[in-house]
Amino acid sequence: VTFRSAEDAGSVGEFGLIRRIRDALPPGGDALVLGPGDDAAILSPPSGEHLVFTVDTLTEDVHFRIAWTSARQLGARLLVQGLSDVAAMGARPLGAVVALSLPAGKDTDFVDGFLRGLLDAGRTYRCPLAGGNLSRSATGVSATAALTGSVSPGRALRRERARAGQSVWVTGTPGAAAAGLAALEKGSDAGWTGPLVKRFLEPRPRLDEAAFLRDAAGVEAAIDLSDGVRRCASLLGEESRCALALEAAALPSTPELEKAAGEFGRPVSSYALDGGEDFELLFTAEAGAVERVKERFEMKFGLPLTRVGTVEKGEGLTVHDDPGRDEFQHFG
Amino acid sequence: VTFRSAEDAGSVGEFGLIRRIRDALPPGGDALVLGPGDDAAILSPPSGEHLVFTVDTLTEDVHFRIAWTSARQLGARLLVQGLSDVAAMGARPLGAVVALSLPAGKDTDFVDGFLRGLLDAGRTYRCPLAGGNLSRSATGVSATAALTGSVSPGRALRRERARAGQSVWVTGTPGAAAAGLAALEKGSDAGWTGPLVKRFLEPRPRLDEAAFLRDAAGVEAAIDLSDGVRRCASLLGEESRCALALEAAALPSTPELEKAAGEFGRPVSSYALDGGEDFELLFTAEAGAVERVKERFEMKFGLPLTRVGTVEKGEGLTVHDDPGRDEFQHFG
Repeated sequence: VTFRSAEDAGSVGEFGLIRRIRDALPPGGDALVLGPGDDAAILSPPSGEHLVFTVDTLTEDVHFRIAWTSARQLGARLLVQGLSDVAAMGARPLGAVVALSLPAGKDTDFVDGFLRGLLDAGRTYRCPLAGGNLSRSATGVSATAALTGSVSPGRALRRERARAGQSVWVTGTPGAAAAGLAALEKGSDAGWTGPLVKRFLEPRPRLDEAAFLRDAAGVEAAIDLSDGVRRCASLLGEESRCALALEAAALPSTPELEKAAGEFGRPVSSYALDGGEDFELLFTAEAGAVERVKERFEMKFGLPLTRVGTVEKGEGLTVHDDPGRDEFQHFG
Repeated sequence: VTFRSAEDAGSVGEFGLIRRIRDALPPGGDALVLGPGDDAAILSPPSGEHLVFTVDTLTEDVHFRIAWTSARQLGARLLVQGLSDVAAMGARPLGAVVALSLPAGKDTDFVDGFLRGLLDAGRTYRCPLAGGNLSRSATGVSATAALTGSVSPGRALRRERARAGQSVWVTGTPGAAAAGLAALEKGSDAGWTGPLVKRFLEPRPRLDEAAFLRDAAGVEAAIDLSDGVRRCASLLGEESRCALALEAAALPSTPELEKAAGEFGRPVSSYALDGGEDFELLFTAEAGAVERVKERFEMKFGLPLTRVGTVEKGEGLTVHDDPGRDEFQHFG
């Protein structure tokens, strides 16, 4: 790999690009033995650990509009999307490889901004950019990131580990990203939408939060909320062969989310239930386990934990006070 | 990850897809602890080993034309492209994740064929499909595969390890794939082009070959020939801070390659030098080291080894009897 097809990408020279990446990489450190420039990168994972492995794509006019986002935000968001999967497994990131496809005419400024976003997020979350591939796209920008992480054998958070009698919880305020996306779609530039838009464009992965919940509250089952509470809770229940019962009214809100609900004419809980694009976590825990660490968690991470339902015997998802399934799309 | 955005992809249902993949996966075995269906896959790498990590993309009308290739060939080729990077590092594959972007209207037959190709190649080369992501594309088909592999610390083949005084070798007959691509571009359906077209559409990674060369002939520096001998030899020399001197006339040929050269009006050695799309290896070795194992290698793998030049002090690439740089594209 490693940006070898850069000649396809117009004015972006391969050697210049690899040099820029090498210069920008943090010195030594982490698990990166060999970064961009060979057929593959080399990582040194902690001995005896299991690896997690995930891949995600962002495609222009499918997952984002270029007018909404800077190249830097896009690079960071691509990495965070993968880091959220790593978090939902309770793992620590090891490194990422990124394939970027660009239409003719995208210049080095775009690539530089995109790389800066990737490298900044990589530094923040200790996930070095190990390698990549740059090629021509037939139309718009498309980018795919694959990430590896490490986790001790048997300690991964798994969708299939929910058990009847447990409580269902969410981190943060799911729905905020979907409301931000709605604001972008409507072209709203009102000041109050700023925090919502930021939640969509600059999400954060819940890496330390997930590890805390596993270690301090015995959490074993989690899923990230990238596809909305309704769909993700269904998946968790299906994998665990349990029924999940949620209270729509229990879903956390914020003043901005309530304002968005009013202005855009949707019930507040719709954003969390059907909106998606959040990188919060939904997880299950034994009754009382999270309550004992809730205050410590909220102080440490500045993020609410909210109990939103229960795991029961049987199958299927029930949402009490359901506002009705709303037809959000990830994108308009 | 794991095909969670399948709802974007028209008629392809997520659950059906994950079930088909799970059913098709080889039972247990290999390093795969948890396959598709969670936020990330889990792999169990050999303890104490280093990981290699690579990513590559195939985009419709940039890297292939849909009229030339079956979905099954495309899936297999995507994996082989990554396996060739793993081979060029002297590593053994651990697993792959694949992001597939499809335009509206591609049906389940395409996805099934593509998956069958991925899974067949994964079985052949012991590289299980660990997870993936399915999403809508803005236009044509695009697919990205990321692979991990394992290698003992210090044993990876590195581009920077060539030393002055060594010989330069290639496996197989580079250029055959480029001649096959030329035949496809020209719409030639003459019988003699069959083996060349097959080399383009159904390439093979040189995994066992690379490990043999390292273990039996002390090879430390290699690169795969996906971008042609000229470009790849330049990269190896640059990374090793050495000059490489190649003999164009020494490059191996076949009757089909000579026929293609005649019919399509290019010098034989142009296909290997500038053609690309081969997944053969170029490597360097101490004088005499390969000669001692050449016969055993060729018997074992049914593949020629050819000495094509030398590593010298200095920098830059010299090609003796150079037919002149030819303007191949990876694709017409």
